[in-house]
Amino acid sequence: MSIIKPRTLSGFMELLPGKQAQFERMLEVLRKTYASYGFAALDTPVIEDAQILLAKGGGDTEKQIYRFQKGDSDLALRFDLTVPLAKYVALHANDLAFPFRRYQISKVYRGERAQRGRFREFYQADIDIIGDGKLDIINEAEIPAIIYKVFKGFGLSRFQIRVNNRKILNGFYEMLHLSHKASDIMRTVDKLDKIGTRKVGMLLIDELDISEDHADDIICFMLIKGTNAEVLEKLEEYRGRNETFDQGLEELKAVCENLSAFGVPEANFAVDLTIARGLDYYTGTVYETTLLDHPEIGSVCSGGRYDNLAGYYTDRQLPGVGISIGLTRLFYVLDEQGLLNPELPTAPCDALVLPMGDIAPAVALAETLRGHGLRVQLYGEQKKFKQKMAYADKLGVKFAVLLGEDEIAAGKCSVKNMTTGEQVTVTPAEAAALITQSMANNGPIILEK
Amino acid sequence: MSIIKPRTLSGFMELLPGKQAQFERMLEVLRKTYASYGFAALDTPVIEDAQILLAKGGGDTEKQIYRFQKGDSDLALRFDLTVPLAKYVALHANDLAFPFRRYQISKVYRGERAQRGRFREFYQADIDIIGDGKLDIINEAEIPAIIYKVFKGFGLSRFQIRVNNRKILNGFYEMLHLSHKASDIMRTVDKLDKIGTRKVGMLLIDELDISEDHADDIICFMLIKGTNAEVLEKLEEYRGRNETFDQGLEELKAVCENLSAFGVPEANFAVDLTIARGLDYYTGTVYETTLLDHPEIGSVCSGGRYDNLAGYYTDRQLPGVGISIGLTRLFYVLDEQGLLNPELPTAPCDALVLPMGDIAPAVALAETLRGHGLRVQLYGEQKKFKQKMAYADKLGVKFAVLLGEDEIAAGKCSVKNMTTGEQVTVTPAEAAALITQSMANNGPIILEK
Repeated sequence: MSIIKPRTLSGFMELLPGKQAQFERMLEVLRKTYASYGFAALDTPVIEDAQILLAKGGGDTEKQIYRFQKGDSDLALRFDLTVPLAKYVALHANDLAFPFRRYQISKVYRGERAQRGRFREFYQADIDIIGDGKLDIINEAEIPAIIYKVFKGFGLSRFQIRVNNRKILNGFYEMLHLSHKASDIMRTVDKLDKIGTRKVGMLLIDELDISEDHADDIICFMLIKGTNAEVLEKLEEYRGRNETFDQGLEELKAVCENLSAFGVPEANFAVDLTIARGLDYYTGTVYETTLLDHPEIGSVCSGGRYDNLAGYYTDRQLPGVGISIGLTRLFYVLDEQGLLNPELPTAPCDALVLPMGDIAPAVALAETLRGHGLRVQLYGEQKKFKQKMAYADKLGVKFAVLLGEDEIAAGKCSVKNMTTGEQVTVTPAEAAALITQSMANNGPIILEK
Repeated sequence: MSIIKPRTLSGFMELLPGKQAQFERMLEVLRKTYASYGFAALDTPVIEDAQILLAKGGGDTEKQIYRFQKGDSDLALRFDLTVPLAKYVALHANDLAFPFRRYQISKVYRGERAQRGRFREFYQADIDIIGDGKLDIINEAEIPAIIYKVFKGFGLSRFQIRVNNRKILNGFYEMLHLSHKASDIMRTVDKLDKIGTRKVGMLLIDELDISEDHADDIICFMLIKGTNAEVLEKLEEYRGRNETFDQGLEELKAVCENLSAFGVPEANFAVDLTIARGLDYYTGTVYETTLLDHPEIGSVCSGGRYDNLAGYYTDRQLPGVGISIGLTRLFYVLDEQGLLNPELPTAPCDALVLPMGDIAPAVALAETLRGHGLRVQLYGEQKKFKQKMAYADKLGVKFAVLLGEDEIAAGKCSVKNMTTGEQVTVTPAEAAALITQSMANNGPIILEK
């Protein structure tokens, strides 16, 4: 038989078991946290009708989407979880209770140019709250508050959820009569951190044909910094000049107040006027989340408020607010930076039962240990003791549980700590307690340096 | 804006939130049970290089596979989890500890003709144990023993794991010098239940050109029935005539003995000589699992032993044993038959907190209840009391927790049982205990009739 060299496509993350164990832990934190806030799990198909996925069309989406024919069908792989949600809500609106809260943690597909840290298949972990006609502003605070819980659940504390409101930006550009240039201005202003105020000013004037006064106004506005209270106070100075702006300011203040009520400390959220997100979708509050020690990777969790989720599929007005964690990329970066807690077990089991004689008592022992909540592998191969221990080592399991004729006769088992080499002969219940205890307090998934 | 009618592709399961909650419960049983036996979670890409996925090629696979170009790449969606596992193990062999035990619960894709109960996107829930060169027979008993645990975990007891050994079949046909016709014979014999012995006999003689004596031999063999001990005893009569047969019989006896040691009752597994599975892949023990009250749906969980997992990708001899639950189809049937336990909550939360005054104390109350392990939704919309209760009803939540000024002043909250209408005013801790208690003992996921 001729051999085909096995490979995994570039841009597709495929983890070794130990790393996958770490990734699974993050998934579990996400599922538990999202569920604890009353979000329903959803699972939409990976493949959808291409016409439906591309209803909005345009831009990178059309270029990046995996689209293909099967029989007469024009199919495509989802490129995010929001468009399928829109379809789902439009399709099933009569069966849903609004506000409808759902989470979905699933893979999405974008045929981007492959490059380090960029993935063509990656997990998004989304929550959205969809209203029917109306949706209270409190939801715009609850969403980032849940993200705060998730990140804390991961063990992170050096992160910042940055909040802005699109109405403030839109209102501001209306004040300057520059709404028609808003998206070009936003793109330019985005470079403030990189190229500085002087160069941004020159670009605004030279390339966008904006007056010097207005360029100054824009840069001054974008440079508003300080505590959240200070930023909000400075924004008060613009009040009364534009209705949209005033509304946005009210919303932003409400979100900040409620974020405090939800227990999010000021260190973890900041009003940031440079946050805009894609210009045609969001209509109110917008979010980006940065790891304070890794600003270079950009936002790891973004979202915002939109007035009309499913306008392409229904006449029903469905406002909502949602946020999405780019989980695959986040995991990649955390791993690359060495931030995954090495103390957490990555072996697929907590104990490896090694039968030294009869198999039946070993089967029973393994089952007893499982009854105590442990993950237990029974080693059933006929190998020499040395080889069995070598396997336990390679597996990375913390405890080997040996069961020979002596132990069986005494109703006991020998528990060998694979790290220290220490071995004790105890009852199965004592073994379970010993192993369970050693697993407690291993710390969070992520260990910040 | 012109509206595109939203739809989900036929052959793709998309569940409403309540049903999804039931499905998620089954996923959790699977993940927990598989993990408790020391299987590592694995997550391979949905898209693979088409050349690699189709290394084996041929038959239905080529017809059904979703295959497409993106740029210069010839891509395809996985049609099972075994071929990606083979690729994974071949690719990462040096980083794995053998026996390598992995589970994967993921969607696979087959562009079959759409029909009721057939899916083009469906979950498989697989476990496999892969050896390096050798793999002990005990694994061939442990695999169905784990499936027994999973099904019991679902709440099923009316199921039967049917076990056979390919060496017994191969050896038997060798005895008759009919190995070259084995696959045709197996296909014909498969019809025994449907068309009876007489017609099967005629087909064997007329269509396959088999002598009358041999046709009788085959039918007699396939009709061997009884308790497992009885079947094994009858098989002893064939011993000594063919080496492969004898080896298969030894293996089958070992699997049966070990299945008992693993605690699988005889009611849930049966030696069945008509089980063969695909003829070119499995080499030893084979399994099929039927729901005793729904034989018409065929096997819901199948697998077996193979001598060479990854022969297309590596020279390394990697024998293994694995089994796969067709989860989407199983769920579909259980639901259709009305077997999903209606007592289990399907609402996305255990309690809905309804603020009747200030929002901040309600936020705090919700957080307190979550601290007790409850899934809690805070209702933040400005609506009348009646509308709030209507929402709670539509959501299907069992408890509404009301928080007005009186309750806030007293440090209490009012818990309303949405089923009975009963309402009590208690402390948050008492509320949590009350709600937690009512959720206990709702029974298994599946309620057999």
